[in-house]
Amino acid sequence: VSGGGVFQGLFVPDHVAEQVSERAWLQAMLDVEAALAGAEAEAGIVPSEAAEAIAAACDAERFDPDSLARDARDTNSPVVPLVKALTAELPDDAARWVHWGTTSQDVMDSASMLVAKRTLPLIDDGLGTVARSCARLAQEHRGTPMAARTLLQQALPTTFGLKAAGWLGGAGDARERLAGLQLAPELGAAAGTLASLGGDGIAVLQSFSQRLGLAAPVLPWHSARARVGELAAALALAAGALEKIALDVTLMAQTEVGELAESSDGGRGGSSTLPHKRNPVGAVRCGACARLARAAATTLLGGMAQEHERASSGAWHAEWPALTDALALTGGAAWSLGESLDGLEVRPDSMRRNLDLTGGLLMAESVAMAIAGHTGRGEAKRIIDAASGRAADSGRPFRDVLMEDETVSELLGPEGIDRALDPEGYLGSAGAFVDRALERYGEGRV
Amino acid sequence: VSGGGVFQGLFVPDHVAEQVSERAWLQAMLDVEAALAGAEAEAGIVPSEAAEAIAAACDAERFDPDSLARDARDTNSPVVPLVKALTAELPDDAARWVHWGTTSQDVMDSASMLVAKRTLPLIDDGLGTVARSCARLAQEHRGTPMAARTLLQQALPTTFGLKAAGWLGGAGDARERLAGLQLAPELGAAAGTLASLGGDGIAVLQSFSQRLGLAAPVLPWHSARARVGELAAALALAAGALEKIALDVTLMAQTEVGELAESSDGGRGGSSTLPHKRNPVGAVRCGACARLARAAATTLLGGMAQEHERASSGAWHAEWPALTDALALTGGAAWSLGESLDGLEVRPDSMRRNLDLTGGLLMAESVAMAIAGHTGRGEAKRIIDAASGRAADSGRPFRDVLMEDETVSELLGPEGIDRALDPEGYLGSAGAFVDRALERYGEGRV
Amino acid sequence: VSGGGVFQGLFVPDHVAEQVSERAWLQAMLDVEAALAGAEAEAGIVPSEAAEAIAAACDAERFDPDSLARDARDTNSPVVPLVKALTAELPDDAARWVHWGTTSQDVMDSASMLVAKRTLPLIDDGLGTVARSCARLAQEHRGTPMAARTLLQQALPTTFGLKAAGWLGGAGDARERLAGLQLAPELGAAAGTLASLGGDGIAVLQSFSQRLGLAAPVLPWHSARARVGELAAALALAAGALEKIALDVTLMAQTEVGELAESSDGGRGGSSTLPHKRNPVGAVRCGACARLARAAATTLLGGMAQEHERASSGAWHAEWPALTDALALTGGAAWSLGESLDGLEVRPDSMRRNLDLTGGLLMAESVAMAIAGHTGRGEAKRIIDAASGRAADSGRPFRDVLMEDETVSELLGPEGIDRALDPEGYLGSAGAFVDRALERYGEGRV
Amino acid sequence: VSGGGVFQGLFVPDHVAEQVSERAWLQAMLDVEAALAGAEAEAGIVPSEAAEAIAAACDAERFDPDSLARDARDTNSPVVPLVKALTAELPDDAARWVHWGTTSQDVMDSASMLVAKRTLPLIDDGLGTVARSCARLAQEHRGTPMAARTLLQQALPTTFGLKAAGWLGGAGDARERLAGLQLAPELGAAAGTLASLGGDGIAVLQSFSQRLGLAAPVLPWHSARARVGELAAALALAAGALEKIALDVTLMAQTEVGELAESSDGGRGGSSTLPHKRNPVGAVRCGACARLARAAATTLLGGMAQEHERASSGAWHAEWPALTDALALTGGAAWSLGESLDGLEVRPDSMRRNLDLTGGLLMAESVAMAIAGHTGRGEAKRIIDAASGRAADSGRPFRDVLMEDETVSELLGPEGIDRALDPEGYLGSAGAFVDRALERYGEGRV
Repeated sequence: VSGGGVFQGLFVPDHVAEQVSERAWLQAMLDVEAALAGAEAEAGIVPSEAAEAIAAACDAERFDPDSLARDARDTNSPVVPLVKALTAELPDDAARWVHWGTTSQDVMDSASMLVAKRTLPLIDDGLGTVARSCARLAQEHRGTPMAARTLLQQALPTTFGLKAAGWLGGAGDARERLAGLQLAPELGAAAGTLASLGGDGIAVLQSFSQRLGLAAPVLPWHSARARVGELAAALALAAGALEKIALDVTLMAQTEVGELAESSDGGRGGSSTLPHKRNPVGAVRCGACARLARAAATTLLGGMAQEHERASSGAWHAEWPALTDALALTGGAAWSLGESLDGLEVRPDSMRRNLDLTGGLLMAESVAMAIAGHTGRGEAKRIIDAASGRAADSGRPFRDVLMEDETVSELLGPEGIDRALDPEGYLGSAGAFVDRALERYGEGRV
Repeated sequence: VSGGGVFQGLFVPDHVAEQVSERAWLQAMLDVEAALAGAEAEAGIVPSEAAEAIAAACDAERFDPDSLARDARDTNSPVVPLVKALTAELPDDAARWVHWGTTSQDVMDSASMLVAKRTLPLIDDGLGTVARSCARLAQEHRGTPMAARTLLQQALPTTFGLKAAGWLGGAGDARERLAGLQLAPELGAAAGTLASLGGDGIAVLQSFSQRLGLAAPVLPWHSARARVGELAAALALAAGALEKIALDVTLMAQTEVGELAESSDGGRGGSSTLPHKRNPVGAVRCGACARLARAAATTLLGGMAQEHERASSGAWHAEWPALTDALALTGGAAWSLGESLDGLEVRPDSMRRNLDLTGGLLMAESVAMAIAGHTGRGEAKRIIDAASGRAADSGRPFRDVLMEDETVSELLGPEGIDRALDPEGYLGSAGAFVDRALERYGEGRV
Repeated sequence: VSGGGVFQGLFVPDHVAEQVSERAWLQAMLDVEAALAGAEAEAGIVPSEAAEAIAAACDAERFDPDSLARDARDTNSPVVPLVKALTAELPDDAARWVHWGTTSQDVMDSASMLVAKRTLPLIDDGLGTVARSCARLAQEHRGTPMAARTLLQQALPTTFGLKAAGWLGGAGDARERLAGLQLAPELGAAAGTLASLGGDGIAVLQSFSQRLGLAAPVLPWHSARARVGELAAALALAAGALEKIALDVTLMAQTEVGELAESSDGGRGGSSTLPHKRNPVGAVRCGACARLARAAATTLLGGMAQEHERASSGAWHAEWPALTDALALTGGAAWSLGESLDGLEVRPDSMRRNLDLTGGLLMAESVAMAIAGHTGRGEAKRIIDAASGRAADSGRPFRDVLMEDETVSELLGPEGIDRALDPEGYLGSAGAFVDRALERYGEGRV
Repeated sequence: VSGGGVFQGLFVPDHVAEQVSERAWLQAMLDVEAALAGAEAEAGIVPSEAAEAIAAACDAERFDPDSLARDARDTNSPVVPLVKALTAELPDDAARWVHWGTTSQDVMDSASMLVAKRTLPLIDDGLGTVARSCARLAQEHRGTPMAARTLLQQALPTTFGLKAAGWLGGAGDARERLAGLQLAPELGAAAGTLASLGGDGIAVLQSFSQRLGLAAPVLPWHSARARVGELAAALALAAGALEKIALDVTLMAQTEVGELAESSDGGRGGSSTLPHKRNPVGAVRCGACARLARAAATTLLGGMAQEHERASSGAWHAEWPALTDALALTGGAAWSLGESLDGLEVRPDSMRRNLDLTGGLLMAESVAMAIAGHTGRGEAKRIIDAASGRAADSGRPFRDVLMEDETVSELLGPEGIDRALDPEGYLGSAGAFVDRALERYGEGRV
């Protein structure tokens, strides 16, 4: 996140930020150098002692990010000054084997996969917190009626449980997708042929991958960027799922709706000048993070076409800050929403009150369906349209109008009318859907 | 594709365009109505005869897209006038059961999944043609040396086979991802509860899904848009993989590089005013399609946060043309590139000529690696940097300079120098990587 | 707009769609050919009779878009088959001068500027309708109090007039920006040098521009795409301004807010199954159009880096459908919103009712400011925070709590408290701002 | 730029980075608080001594960004903890007037305009350096022939001067657009009415704006984001113009083209493993910056629709890092390209050598135009198509084929043929266009 500490600290929790910090990137690059030296030692290319000495020196604390960054401008690669600095830390007989047979891109690409590998569990934790809250809400409010809204107009009754189940499904999809990513390191040397490793290329690639805890790729992918693109897509999809939940929370927290409120513990969500406000700060922040995460992911998806064996158009170099942002801010979105849902105040009474706002008109479909079995859909619609028109025009309760309507009265009787007007009686498969969502969650498939 | 026939016909082949045409969309909506009536008949909600009559009337040829579109402005939904027109086609006892218990969004969302299901095989065909060409090129040119280029500067030798293997991998990834999509219809009725189907909601959902040849979703997804987002992401990733290949083709087809040329059969790629040109029209068109496809996919990914039970911000409505474009133009990209690769003229002699352009300097790493075993990497780099500097300054062949260099001469001897300067002798694992890519392709995993 | 008639007819009004139709594009290309022939005749390059014959044949009705599109695939340019078809229409002594000294890109780029020139007035008309409605609303509701909402929480009172004045300002900015665009044709021939026109290049360029009613460019801009980028940016900014208004309309039209409703004339905004709904169809459609317009504009902005003298990456070719969409859909957004605002039902009573929802807490700042002059801001905030806390906890009206509060009572007295609690008494510069906005509108600067 | 020092230091020069640093943002917020206190003192709202004390304490060095960021999470606003910390620095009688009558958004929005105002001159400096280099190249190489390339195929001769003049035009447009921006502060208080300032709102707004050196806005723009959108668009357009130049540089610097090389002073552009490389590091870095800048600008353009009086969807909060990035990276792009062009090595001999690569075929249009006056365009095209076909098939020089062609020989004679084949004789208005571009530059309109 740009703008330094002021904005990063606001959007991204510290433990996520740490995993994509300059220190984390440097350590990842160093871990790549160490793993490569180790793999090359295993293949008999590099002396074991040298590999061990290299590994021992690969500690990010030893290096100064700022000076590396400045020196990187001559080559556009932080790896070049880092290798130089690392080499300078070592005795000659180890120094000569540093970065053996590899190239900057191998190191940066593999490091970016390591950074992803280390950040994804924190994103998953955040998503897990969100999912847990959603599951709890779905369960607790399996039968809590509220108005469903399409185009922000009340449509029909639903339950808060079903809404939360939908959120749960979104969070679950996001986690599955992230869990399904196959992260693999890059190793191809200057041209993707591993010529510098003679006949040992494939063997070194296998060992190198294993040492990094990553899958061995079929081919070097220095200019086949689907691996980065897939990661970006999975993060964008996660951000989108989180953003949807945040959006619903802010809408339900509106003063005029009042169905939800974020916790105001410790003054959270207060306004400097407006003491009555209960701002949904977690949800709003989630939305901001999601927008920024998606933008970063779009940059990654938009830069897949890279020239020949390394991009000349900047598409590769642009990946580094973009990937950093995509990870940090998807994490930020997940943790912000987790915070929003954690102490969420749910107000079933407001939900009920809103359900009654239309004076029963919201149940028109229910009444229409009740009589449609007798009259057919078209005729039922005509009858109910007329009745709701009369109710709307006169401002009288829909129930009164229906009771007076001869056809409806005759077909349903007073009890039938009341039954048809009861929101809890017109929830269809809402409960069943909640159960299906919880079952999926319970199976750990979320 | 916008701009009507002029541009659509240019970018998208007719057989792909047909599957996303207004006719195809209408038919898909009608197929959804028919499947729903059928499923409801199975559940005993709708009379079988009515369902059959509805199915029989669900033929897009009967309806006029233009007048439907105009009438759609009052509701923002083509389904409303379509249902009205369909109802008008039927006798009363069938008419009353049309669109029973559903809502516009169910029909549009399910139709969009049907449109996707029908277009994806054509996209896969296009990708398959691309993959086949790449596999052939990888095989035929497994040993054809050419210059690898990083930042558009020659770096080291590689083979055209390895380059084509990289392309093949990209196409294969794209196909796997598209094949892995789980398309499912939407059915939730006005609020996502299926209240209008009473207790039969889940049963109808299962049968409805099966009749459409799609997977039954765990939950209605009217405002959980990951399904659309995943489709979009898979299309964007496919477009990106195709664009990468097209980019390499245009770069290799440059007048000054001359390593590839698209077929000029029938005057293809000729210029109206410049008779000597061999424009890579297929690759350029692929690039244009890929850009537009990705933009459409980005719109879909950017619209995942939809309000409550149906988006009020236009994010849902914007999906229709965006999905149409994403499908049509990924198809356009695949078929354009297929055309580019199909008659591709490969010029190994130009590849070889370009390899020699640096007067041997391209092989500096090879020579450095040859002596590094003796001297260590740092010392080797110093020696070879000095030698290549002398070659560059004097304009003399690198070979001559190396032969005169006492250290190099002593360490390698004249034959060793020639061996180190031979591009075909410094290809590392290029062949092995080609084999791995072809093996994966052969396993049908592509 | 993709998806053919079904979606285009929904989003884009016919008279806008016509100006970006395939017919309109063809006519624009033909007008360019005619203007060029005319300019070349003026320079003595082309015989006058030939130029006249060419101009006479430049009628889009004579040509078949579909067959042109198909033939365009060999060259990626509709101009090539069009020129061939145009040439075939003419006697030999005119035919030989068709497309004299120019190239496809000149024709496409100049045609795209013509298409823009012809569509922009319709977009401006739509924006003008929006502005007129906003001005009317600002004037009529200059003093109508309503709740201002930040983060969707009620913050303080404002007026509906000020909100509408803000909308008016956005529409006015958009119109100014569009009016300020300098559209210019492209003429550079195959390489941008106009070599084919010998020494007459500049003269022909001037006359050609004048004949098209466009400004003459300083330089050919075949690969300097700021002209397209600026147009795209202006359209994106217009779309954004419209989308903001649409967003506010949908929020104010929420069932629970009920401050606005779009006209339901002729059944507009009705739901197929939910008779009580008043969907804000114009505003929702505006949102959809704005999203798609912005996506198209982003494609144009993202394709400015075009290789050498004509893009090889597809960035140029992708401009055609993207520009078509950007124009059509900004127009669609403007006209949809115009329709939304035109019959807009404004409900000052609901606005007032919502203002009272917080039981007076909304006026806390007003009360705080009233006492802050006596106590300082910090102390005032402490006092009012405490009082609003007591009101919120007890559920009692804020007024009662304040009356009982010794400090507040003493400082303000009962009348002072009532004055401080009156929304209309705490509107600051709202009226003055409305006047400033209307003044700007009146000056025709909008 | 994300990823901390490692990436920011690489992409953004220190003096640009400083102006968008956390320190710079804090100082801008503090300057806003000071200006407001000053303006309020002028209006007699705040005591002069308090305003002076506030101004004196408004020094960013006094505050700790990290702790502010952490405390900002409760309100999503760095302003809240900053105001608290500032208040704590002051004696009571000044403290009570801090942040008087304003709200977080006023401070953040006005601060962002200040940050822009302070960074734009540095971006303009970078663009000015680029323009100066382009002007120099245009002048020096006004007559240096090179191949124009369309779709990366050689098309016709042009001059390097004309290419540089095109670049100059792009840089000039970008500067004009940035110079034309009207930056204005935001002041509306909690609801946009300035109610907290009683009747002094407009007067305070004027004085506040003047104190900040910014234009006074007609209306508060807290949720009318065109001001931010225009800034974003201008930055995106600048980035696009820079990216175009960088793209051409990388293409001309290709090993096989060799027409340009960036300076290799001090080892710039060297490769860690490939000593012969001359990587165009400035141009590549410019491309990376431009991509990231455009992505940030797209985020800003995509977030213009903000809810009511302050965005609830995160669109406003997302502006802060996005604006930071858009400014920093457009600056990065300009300065990177400036570095690329500064020591640029131009190789007219390579340009000439490339012009000859097609054996004269490149001049086919020139020959065709030479005979077309006699034969008409169609016939000339047929004759020259045939001749170039014979030359291409036989591999013989085009000149030989033309000399043997009876028609061509007869019409032009040997000298005429040689004249028609001379690239420098077929440059049309190239020189005139260069002069026009330089004249515009000279007029300081660039």
